[in-house]
Amino acid sequence: MHSPTNPTHSVAGLLAEIAEIGTESLRGGYYRPVFSTAELDLREWFIAHANARGLDVEIDAIGTIRAWWHLPSRVTTGAVLTGSHLDSVPGGGAFDGPLGIASALVAVDILRARGFVPEKPLAIAAFPEEEGSRFGVACLGSRILTGAITPARALALRDPDGNTFAEVLARNGFDPGAVDADLNGIRRFDSFVELHVEQGRALIDLDAPLAIGSSILGHGRWRASVRGEGNHAGTTLMTDRRDPMVAAARAIHVIRDLARAIDGARATVGRLQPVPGGTNVIASRVDFWIDVRHPDDAVTKALVEEIRSTLGVVAAEEGCHSQLIEESFSSTAHFDPVLRTRLESMLEGAPVLPTGAGHDAGILASVIPSAMLFVRNPSGISHSPEEYATDLDAQIGAERLADVLQGLLAGDHPG
Amino acid sequence: MHSPTNPTHSVAGLLAEIAEIGTESLRGGYYRPVFSTAELDLREWFIAHANARGLDVEIDAIGTIRAWWHLPSRVTTGAVLTGSHLDSVPGGGAFDGPLGIASALVAVDILRARGFVPEKPLAIAAFPEEEGSRFGVACLGSRILTGAITPARALALRDPDGNTFAEVLARNGFDPGAVDADLNGIRRFDSFVELHVEQGRALIDLDAPLAIGSSILGHGRWRASVRGEGNHAGTTLMTDRRDPMVAAARAIHVIRDLARAIDGARATVGRLQPVPGGTNVIASRVDFWIDVRHPDDAVTKALVEEIRSTLGVVAAEEGCHSQLIEESFSSTAHFDPVLRTRLESMLEGAPVLPTGAGHDAGILASVIPSAMLFVRNPSGISHSPEEYATDLDAQIGAERLADVLQGLLAGDHPG
Repeated sequence: MHSPTNPTHSVAGLLAEIAEIGTESLRGGYYRPVFSTAELDLREWFIAHANARGLDVEIDAIGTIRAWWHLPSRVTTGAVLTGSHLDSVPGGGAFDGPLGIASALVAVDILRARGFVPEKPLAIAAFPEEEGSRFGVACLGSRILTGAITPARALALRDPDGNTFAEVLARNGFDPGAVDADLNGIRRFDSFVELHVEQGRALIDLDAPLAIGSSILGHGRWRASVRGEGNHAGTTLMTDRRDPMVAAARAIHVIRDLARAIDGARATVGRLQPVPGGTNVIASRVDFWIDVRHPDDAVTKALVEEIRSTLGVVAAEEGCHSQLIEESFSSTAHFDPVLRTRLESMLEGAPVLPTGAGHDAGILASVIPSAMLFVRNPSGISHSPEEYATDLDAQIGAERLADVLQGLLAGDHPG
Repeated sequence: MHSPTNPTHSVAGLLAEIAEIGTESLRGGYYRPVFSTAELDLREWFIAHANARGLDVEIDAIGTIRAWWHLPSRVTTGAVLTGSHLDSVPGGGAFDGPLGIASALVAVDILRARGFVPEKPLAIAAFPEEEGSRFGVACLGSRILTGAITPARALALRDPDGNTFAEVLARNGFDPGAVDADLNGIRRFDSFVELHVEQGRALIDLDAPLAIGSSILGHGRWRASVRGEGNHAGTTLMTDRRDPMVAAARAIHVIRDLARAIDGARATVGRLQPVPGGTNVIASRVDFWIDVRHPDDAVTKALVEEIRSTLGVVAAEEGCHSQLIEESFSSTAHFDPVLRTRLESMLEGAPVLPTGAGHDAGILASVIPSAMLFVRNPSGISHSPEEYATDLDAQIGAERLADVLQGLLAGDHPG
């Protein structure tokens, strides 16, 4: 590792510039869905900082921003990629996403302050719709670019207001007809390192500011629909009901118990929508979304089948019908062992941790060697206003990212 | 009963005129919340039909419309009131509310066709916000007029977009400062007869087109809030969670079972809102609304206390905190026995039925003799697109309403 260097900006200073953008008065924290005013403002902020550093900004057909340091006229291989995303979940924290962007900008400052001259090009990327909080599919941008989702399926995804991804792209000046996988574009890079705030408590317990990622837990989203019979809450006897809310409630309880019984499994219902949703109306339909994760994809699939069968039984007992539809699934992604070993040698003593959260690095890992760095989160809480990183840890993160990038940009030998 | 007469319009014909207003593409049926474009359109439709019949239209400080047949310059007592409401629940049917208005208009046509000249004034009323689907308090209009809710509390109620009732009134040209109870205005009437579509299956089983109401089930709404710890759905172990959705789900199941164990009780959760509501986010808070009803108010209160204590226990078991707040409560209302006996003598053989649904007639019953007529609903379903009445039953309803009004408008002796 290198000794501290004084960059132009601190990570905390950069994040302070966007602290007022996309705040949520109702839920607390931030809501910055892709292509919302808030996320567009963050894009401008990123581009302004790239321009101020003389980085060349490239924006692709789906709105991925890449700020290049030393962009040669034709890069076909050997470049290095870092970055993260700007969008957030509803009620999310300030660090999930923007920390990786701000740290990458500061890492460039640090490398320049060190007088380092890279032998390879570096790009800082902001991937669109990492959270899937607008169009329902997490890591939508990296999935499109790697071909993990077809352009047709992606373009037809709808936000809660009914706008398709195609319509939203067009409204933001992009040509939906140009959307396609871009494997050559990704293969310009021989490594991707994403820095991210930690979303669990491991670094608190280890008393360490930073970790190297080993793997991303396999995860997916399933939409459950329970259909019953809408009716009047006052005139319908309890015995005459086919109430999908009761069926959904029973299922949600069982889903938790099923997941709790499997070591390492997680199942969450964080979103639920009764239709029509009136206080004095027995719902005719209840939709809810189940997020299921486990290191072993076979266990995840088996758990989902258990959930499906439980849901069917409970719905039938309540006189209802149920349906469970997979909206997305990502296998457990193990990061490239060679790249990880290089990072371990560059960041001596940094712990190596798996993560339960999905990331674009997990998607890109199927195409190019990818790695992650996690910065300690003293709350242990994420996707919540309570998520944070101290100014010092954030700065250490940028410094260590600079160390890693310096090694990777210097050549093909361990740094 | 009188023999059939040919009015200007049929009830079905009048309702057909508004069949396209406020339809719901997502849920099916109608959504016509008070002072929405749809409800304002229905108001215009009602006023146009009142004008066409030469009825004098009076609109009070909260937007209650009254169309007078033979409005004397100063009515202080002895008038007769009929009518219902124009607003609907989300995803509601075409008849709940508008059937009472259309039937009253047709009843006037019928009485005129009969050559009947009333000895007393008649008013057809459309009460605002009967469903409480916009501001959360059912029968808001009649509650304000009878003093069952204070003007200050009513004006401060908020719709889901955060607009207060005061703001919405002002935006629609009303002076919120003029809102007050109007007991003298109500006491101008010595009887109120509300015709309504039946919201249960009794008339199907009795093979009768029309019933007289005996009582309205006591009912209320309580808002439950469960607070836990928002966190990331992937990184948070099942054992580390304080998930308010699981607590709410468990409570909803128990609430149903508690209500099912008490003869005649109903408890419904038709509306639920997780905060923040992201698929990959453990909710930090879940709000849900419980509609509870029982003929005996003491039983309702006891059931609510059981629900409160269950909710507290379940929330604590899940590491969460809970709160249960009463939003409204109406005691079981028994309709005036003298007025009911008069209706029974006018409508020989009509069955007498209690109803589980709340109505403005139940609120007005605390101030003036009130009564209800129910028109058969072949689906037995209400607050749903499936609610309906046949054209014939609707016309029979208007004819019987005309019989009743003829008796009441003719003098104080049984008709």
